Amino acid sequence: MYYDDFTVGQKFFLEPVTISEAEILEFAKKYDPLPIHIDPEFAKNSLFGGIIASGFHTLCAIHAKMIKLRIVYEEVIGGLGIDYLQWSNPVHPNDTLRGEVEITEKIPSSKGGQGILAYRVVVRNQDDQLVMTYQVKSLVKSRN
Amino acid sequence: MYYDDFTVGQKFFLEPVTISEAEILEFAKKYDPLPIHIDPEFAKNSLFGGIIASGFHTLCAIHAKMIKLRIVYEEVIGGLGIDYLQWSNPVHPNDTLRGEVEITEKIPSSKGGQGILAYRVVVRNQDDQLVMTYQVKSLVKSRN
Repeated sequence: MYYDDFTVGQKFFLEPVTISEAEILEFAKKYDPLPIHIDPEFAKNSLFGGIIASGFHTLCAIHAKMIKLRIVYEEVIGGLGIDYLQWSNPVHPNDTLRGEVEITEKIPSSKGGQGILAYRVVVRNQDDQLVMTYQVKSLVKSRN
Repeated sequence: MYYDDFTVGQKFFLEPVTISEAEILEFAKKYDPLPIHIDPEFAKNSLFGGIIASGFHTLCAIHAKMIKLRIVYEEVIGGLGIDYLQWSNPVHPNDTLRGEVEITEKIPSSKGGQGILAYRVVVRNQDDQLVMTYQVKSLVKSRN
């Protein structure tokens, strides 16, 4: 879909994603090697009673599901940034996350052939607890 | 280091990180499978003339270097969120990134034993071009 094809308020529902303990460890060892993510013994005595997923892992796992929907695909010129992101509740091993994407803003470009889309993403776990909320912006081709 | 040990304005310099084409492809196939990140043929005709790293990859690669510094380690209670993030220039294969972290805010908690730290991270490439700027907040134990 091109910039022109989107409407503010339009929503998309992402395929659920379950994050295993092995995946939590693999991601965190590479990108976020804090004891709360990689050391089960340490984490047992933490606030959460066991290891939790890196927030960056949650973000990447949900982003993957968004790209797999191909809402935009070859039309993406580039990512611009993240307007805000909150991690509201921890992600424990085997939690299942469901994301909902809403087009919250369209910013026309003074350059022809492109525009900026803002996507707000809200993620909840299997108990319907809010896990993560964020908004990203990307530059997307338009039809003309 | 505990919450109490930090001063607003304090800076830390991250170990440089070079991102190879193989790493760009591996990360993007898993978490950001857009043609500009995974399809060299498609990317050749894009604005950037070849594949570029996912912005989420750049973020995770820099975050890994920040955690490896162990500025905070066992003291982290949890990540709270990202206040803002901008991707200013693309990351091409074999670019070398250098990150600088500054403590920009300390927010005392009404609960004893903890406080919130804000870290602003500025990332430049080997040509000193700005690549990424972001600020994250995390909840960190205090000494008392």
